[in-house]
Amino acid sequence: MITSPHNDKLKEVRRLQRRRDARFVAEGEDLLAAAAHAGWRAVYELRAGVDVAPELLDGVSALGSGTRALGVFEQRWAPAPTGPLCVALWGVHDPGNVGTIIRSARAFGVASVALGPDCADPFGPRAVRASMGAIFAVAVTQVRAVDELPGERIALVARSGPALRGPAGAPCTILVGAERAGLPAAVVATCDRVAHIPIAGDSLNAAMAATIALYELSRVPAA
Amino acid sequence: MITSPHNDKLKEVRRLQRRRDARFVAEGEDLLAAAAHAGWRAVYELRAGVDVAPELLDGVSALGSGTRALGVFEQRWAPAPTGPLCVALWGVHDPGNVGTIIRSARAFGVASVALGPDCADPFGPRAVRASMGAIFAVAVTQVRAVDELPGERIALVARSGPALRGPAGAPCTILVGAERAGLPAAVVATCDRVAHIPIAGDSLNAAMAATIALYELSRVPAA
Repeated sequence: MITSPHNDKLKEVRRLQRRRDARFVAEGEDLLAAAAHAGWRAVYELRAGVDVAPELLDGVSALGSGTRALGVFEQRWAPAPTGPLCVALWGVHDPGNVGTIIRSARAFGVASVALGPDCADPFGPRAVRASMGAIFAVAVTQVRAVDELPGERIALVARSGPALRGPAGAPCTILVGAERAGLPAAVVATCDRVAHIPIAGDSLNAAMAATIALYELSRVPAA
Repeated sequence: MITSPHNDKLKEVRRLQRRRDARFVAEGEDLLAAAAHAGWRAVYELRAGVDVAPELLDGVSALGSGTRALGVFEQRWAPAPTGPLCVALWGVHDPGNVGTIIRSARAFGVASVALGPDCADPFGPRAVRASMGAIFAVAVTQVRAVDELPGERIALVARSGPALRGPAGAPCTILVGAERAGLPAAVVATCDRVAHIPIAGDSLNAAMAATIALYELSRVPAA
């Protein structure tokens, strides 16, 4: 059992909580269970009172006190985005939004999540937490350009084009931009079509817009 | 201009950031603009470099440094929930989820948000921030029992009943529970019917489930 704060594993966890690395930390029993369910083995796990003194584990937690367990994992990036349904993010800076979208992708059976330029690290602690373990189940990949994306490319743009209507009849990628800036004009211009989520007032955040789009595209036709 | 950290307004803001009170704090130019747009006047505003030394404003910010402005407002609770479309939350502890649902309510033209037992304070700093100003535009009310809710009462329960299908043909309230516990069985039993959001895998968070439900119930029939 680790009883010194100078232990090398604790030092690594502290470093991983702060910056990008080939490894990442997942905190909490639920996330460790999700990793196990997906067959994604931890490099090592630290459990309070078993592997490490509880107060030391709390000290390296990004969630605050009370963490019972965490695991350090190797990152896995899928080589390329795949269909039939893909969601691509451009400039989504907020790690909570990125994690939530990965969770929605899992909920709606999306084949892959493609991260374009200027997105939050999906393996950062807030994104991993918001994914609620979906980070272990969904293929996540990095792309630089729209032409890497599978199927018809649909740009989700507030108040533009027709209302998005599902179910998707053919393979497609839905592209979602940052909350304020939206998708860059050059990205929209490269897409096959533009659609929007009809709303009565104000705006949706990126995670909500993406979640509704995935719900709509994956919906089962009414009987 | 305030130049002392012992100023009474700064003391009040620090207190409001921590606990419930008849007043609340909204931070940031966007939220102040939303309040002004809704005709909801601040008791007072504090603007960096105008009313208060910037470093003192940063010191009372719940957002961290860089706050340019904040306002202190009187809370407003609507006397009762109203239709035609109402969303009711039971045991939604997370203030970010409560704020996000208020934002969705605004986006989808919901008449009121009813907070049942054990919900996060919608006027707390995280909820206000997540609402992105919708707290100033949507009627928020407290309820104790299902029979206070307007229209047909639909309990949203994972994997139960038929898939939720919109648009709502008649006035209704959609009830959403906490992420894990869901709606209490006694609450579900008092509702008129049960429905779910169809998902392929795992789960949605409470805010995403509520957002999709409101999107679905407010949808315009396909032409």
